[in-house]
Amino acid sequence: MTISMYTASAPRLVNALKNLAAILAKGEAHAAARKIDPAVFLSARLFPDMFPLTKQVQIACDVAKGTVARLADMEAPKHEDSEQSFGDLQARIAKVVAFIEAVPAERIVGSEERRIVLTIRGEDTVFQGMQYLLGWALPNVYFHVTTAYAILRHNGVEIGKKDFLGKP
Amino acid sequence: MTISMYTASAPRLVNALKNLAAILAKGEAHAAARKIDPAVFLSARLFPDMFPLTKQVQIACDVAKGTVARLADMEAPKHEDSEQSFGDLQARIAKVVAFIEAVPAERIVGSEERRIVLTIRGEDTVFQGMQYLLGWALPNVYFHVTTAYAILRHNGVEIGKKDFLGKP
Repeated sequence: MTISMYTASAPRLVNALKNLAAILAKGEAHAAARKIDPAVFLSARLFPDMFPLTKQVQIACDVAKGTVARLADMEAPKHEDSEQSFGDLQARIAKVVAFIEAVPAERIVGSEERRIVLTIRGEDTVFQGMQYLLGWALPNVYFHVTTAYAILRHNGVEIGKKDFLGKP
Repeated sequence: MTISMYTASAPRLVNALKNLAAILAKGEAHAAARKIDPAVFLSARLFPDMFPLTKQVQIACDVAKGTVARLADMEAPKHEDSEQSFGDLQARIAKVVAFIEAVPAERIVGSEERRIVLTIRGEDTVFQGMQYLLGWALPNVYFHVTTAYAILRHNGVEIGKKDFLGKP
């Protein structure tokens, strides 16, 4: 099999999100076992002006679905940022995974030079598809999944890098 | 340009390492400005049994150089884990960047099915090249660069996601 814009995106984003789901499940189980209010974890952050756990998960989901939608030239499903529990976050991840898995590979294969316009902090940034995927989208998703991991790890949840990597 | 095992690896790893170097430079400057002993940052960690900042940087470097070496079927340069300062870490990153940039693209192009054997916690794991790159190596490097970022961010260094993403 030859590497393609599809093999480098959709299945990898699904994998990252499923690993995030497994990490969150360990966080939820830890909270239950220690009788910690789950809201303590969901609102935890590493510094006062950083986003808390819930927001890290929401952004990871939004970047993942937006990546696939933009590369496939489709509309991404909209999700309100209304999650209040670990279960809500799991449901959001599952919706994004289902969306990504339903996108046909042939819509993404060959998108290396597709023009992608992102509005970041009010400014339009223009990417080519491959630069967008490899230089912006994948690192961005891994950034938020790792930060979610780091927030839980910092709070004593027993997780390791193998939970983050899952089954490569 | 079509995505290849080269475009998805070497330039991306170099970019991640250069962004890490820029983040560390901000950490060092922050320590100097606040008269914080740099060793406080270098030994900082997010939980007692997590690796400190220096080790996060060393692992990011080792995974990056090992990825390119394995995909190109070359020997990776050896680096002792002897860094004691921000300057030492910058020098290590620079050595790895120089190694990666010297590897000819044609040694990596077409490595999708190359057999890669990793010894992880004493056990051999066999990957195909593409699975190794996309499922293990890239997430691994981003994991350690993000964790280095998170350690400094947690300690008050003024950095943001755009420092992590750099110029995509």
